[in-house]
Amino acid sequence: MKFTCAQNELNTNLSLVSRAVPSRPNHPVLGNVLFVADEEKGEISLTAFDLSLGIKTSFQATVSESGTVTLPAKLLNDIVSRLSDGEITLVVEEQDDAEEQILATLTSVSGRFQLRGMLATEFPQLPSIENGETIILPITALTEGLKASLFAASTDETKQVLTGVHLTGTPDSLEFAATDGHRLSVVQTPLEEAETSNITQGFGVTIPARTLRELERILSVNQTTDLVTLRVDEGQIIFEIGDQKLTSRKLEGAYPAYQQLIPKKFDRSVTLERKRLLSSLERVAVLADQKNNLVKFSLDGDKGQLTLSVESPDLGSAKELMPAEMSGDNTDIAFNVKYLMDGLKALPASQISMQLNESTQPVIFSPLDGLKMTYLVMPVQIRN
Amino acid sequence: MKFTCAQNELNTNLSLVSRAVPSRPNHPVLGNVLFVADEEKGEISLTAFDLSLGIKTSFQATVSESGTVTLPAKLLNDIVSRLSDGEITLVVEEQDDAEEQILATLTSVSGRFQLRGMLATEFPQLPSIENGETIILPITALTEGLKASLFAASTDETKQVLTGVHLTGTPDSLEFAATDGHRLSVVQTPLEEAETSNITQGFGVTIPARTLRELERILSVNQTTDLVTLRVDEGQIIFEIGDQKLTSRKLEGAYPAYQQLIPKKFDRSVTLERKRLLSSLERVAVLADQKNNLVKFSLDGDKGQLTLSVESPDLGSAKELMPAEMSGDNTDIAFNVKYLMDGLKALPASQISMQLNESTQPVIFSPLDGLKMTYLVMPVQIRN
Repeated sequence: MKFTCAQNELNTNLSLVSRAVPSRPNHPVLGNVLFVADEEKGEISLTAFDLSLGIKTSFQATVSESGTVTLPAKLLNDIVSRLSDGEITLVVEEQDDAEEQILATLTSVSGRFQLRGMLATEFPQLPSIENGETIILPITALTEGLKASLFAASTDETKQVLTGVHLTGTPDSLEFAATDGHRLSVVQTPLEEAETSNITQGFGVTIPARTLRELERILSVNQTTDLVTLRVDEGQIIFEIGDQKLTSRKLEGAYPAYQQLIPKKFDRSVTLERKRLLSSLERVAVLADQKNNLVKFSLDGDKGQLTLSVESPDLGSAKELMPAEMSGDNTDIAFNVKYLMDGLKALPASQISMQLNESTQPVIFSPLDGLKMTYLVMPVQIRN
Repeated sequence: MKFTCAQNELNTNLSLVSRAVPSRPNHPVLGNVLFVADEEKGEISLTAFDLSLGIKTSFQATVSESGTVTLPAKLLNDIVSRLSDGEITLVVEEQDDAEEQILATLTSVSGRFQLRGMLATEFPQLPSIENGETIILPITALTEGLKASLFAASTDETKQVLTGVHLTGTPDSLEFAATDGHRLSVVQTPLEEAETSNITQGFGVTIPARTLRELERILSVNQTTDLVTLRVDEGQIIFEIGDQKLTSRKLEGAYPAYQQLIPKKFDRSVTLERKRLLSSLERVAVLADQKNNLVKFSLDGDKGQLTLSVESPDLGSAKELMPAEMSGDNTDIAFNVKYLMDGLKALPASQISMQLNESTQPVIFSPLDGLKMTYLVMPVQIRN
């Protein structure tokens, strides 16, 4: 194998796939990146795979000898990222003897590095999908949906299906849902007809949040395409973004029937300025008890005013006021301040509505206009 | 106590003194900041003290009632830093009963916070120096000296006097020295006559590196003065920087006679480009064994070339070349790459000289022009 490419090209692509290299690989070869050099196509492909998440990317290079090798990801990344701009040549000699060590030689203008590699045949194959469903999605819709849902997924690995985001296709939109049992975020991003035509009725898949965070990262640097292809079969999913491919297992198990948790009718509705509410919460949260993180909302429709208060027997107390347009009877209701702040950061609007019934029933926050997002939070009981 | 001030004024000064608040205070009051409001001067002073390092600062405010209190540093800092621009009023009611809780009320445009305080009488006094030596130092000299010496101090708390920087006054300069036993940095910053006239012959003090790092931080944001006053007595030192005061214990014990470690004569002298050497070292260091961090220098005067090489039996090898003007015989010498990189980062010059004798004797790096700095590194024996 022998190829020459630009330092920044190799650096960018190595960093990208390195996200799928486990920090403590079960098998040494999983700590490596698979290199495939194709002389005919003038192309290098890099693959990393932790047996759950896989990332593959490819880029143009001057390949003078096709070949394959796997090289230690972290070490190579550390070297290549420190090299100055310019050309890099990577050579792996043909082996005469299977027992022989594989040595890759990386040459740059300033010097020469030799790294021990392993045979490409030892590297596990990325899953492929032959007979599955294929959906084409616009990057804008995907990015919006992820931003407004991912934060609400559970980080508790024992909660299985809740550690993912559930995607369902409806005739004119793609719906993202994530919940950790305390709060729920549901987002509908509209799809053009051409894109939805390929979503079968009843399509649904739960994808690990970790995979989707990597997808978010890839989408944020992508400059080559507007569309993402999603392939799904019984056990696996694949996202294809231009020259990049992200593979992942699906999360098994039925996703909770979250739609039935969202109240259809409300006794009270309040309009609030999102940023002002968020900064007030950030301040009063400083005094919230670390155990229950409780903040009390006192809604006064006559005064058109929301009062936030926090009481901590050990530390002190905090009270902030802000204007609030309200319909319905005055009431007090309490929340875990962390859940509120998470949702307010993700709500993509300057004005938001808060809809509620009794102080023990779920509360809905949603943007007044723009994206269709429903953020449900369970209130906390106020001890008297 | 009652005063009103600007949010950014209180915020800046609180952050500054908070550096002296211990993260795990031995006594609750040490987790607090001492407030002293002086109606006559229209001034607030803040003090924090961990019994070793103390910081005091003061600023102008509208004081309508003099008084004192101590308030929880972290909590107050977290609240004040999250408040928006504008006026803040802080009130502590007079107590009728010594048993009563002390409650401070902080009011901003958006709301009201109440915090539990403690009596100012419980707060330990900062050390003061009545009969000691007083030296006036220019901030520029102090900043240069700290940057070029602090990094070489030991971080091993058991090494006592080596965890500090040793300052000595000579007739026309202030000398900074720091060593951890493996390398030594000595810097002379020139002083104007007016400044040195107040340094007594034989002046010397060892100051904890931690104190000097705080001093560096204070100097970097200071905009009010060009001079620092240093007061020294048997056990304590005080730096006065405009309205700010930094107090610290001195480090006890005789500082090593480092001047006699520096060779006076050299067999070989090499001129090198600092940045180029540093980036080469950063790359080859990736392959250096984590235990001994060894990099080998091969000096070839005929070719005018320095070759850096690293061999790691497990990972591979690295070799980089660079031009080097050299006098004296060719030789090989090895170093701990970390010590070299630390020194090269601090050397304030684009061209540096490396002076050496045999490959077991100390090596000196120094700038070709500018600041008078001597960086000594002990080589490591090369196993053959």
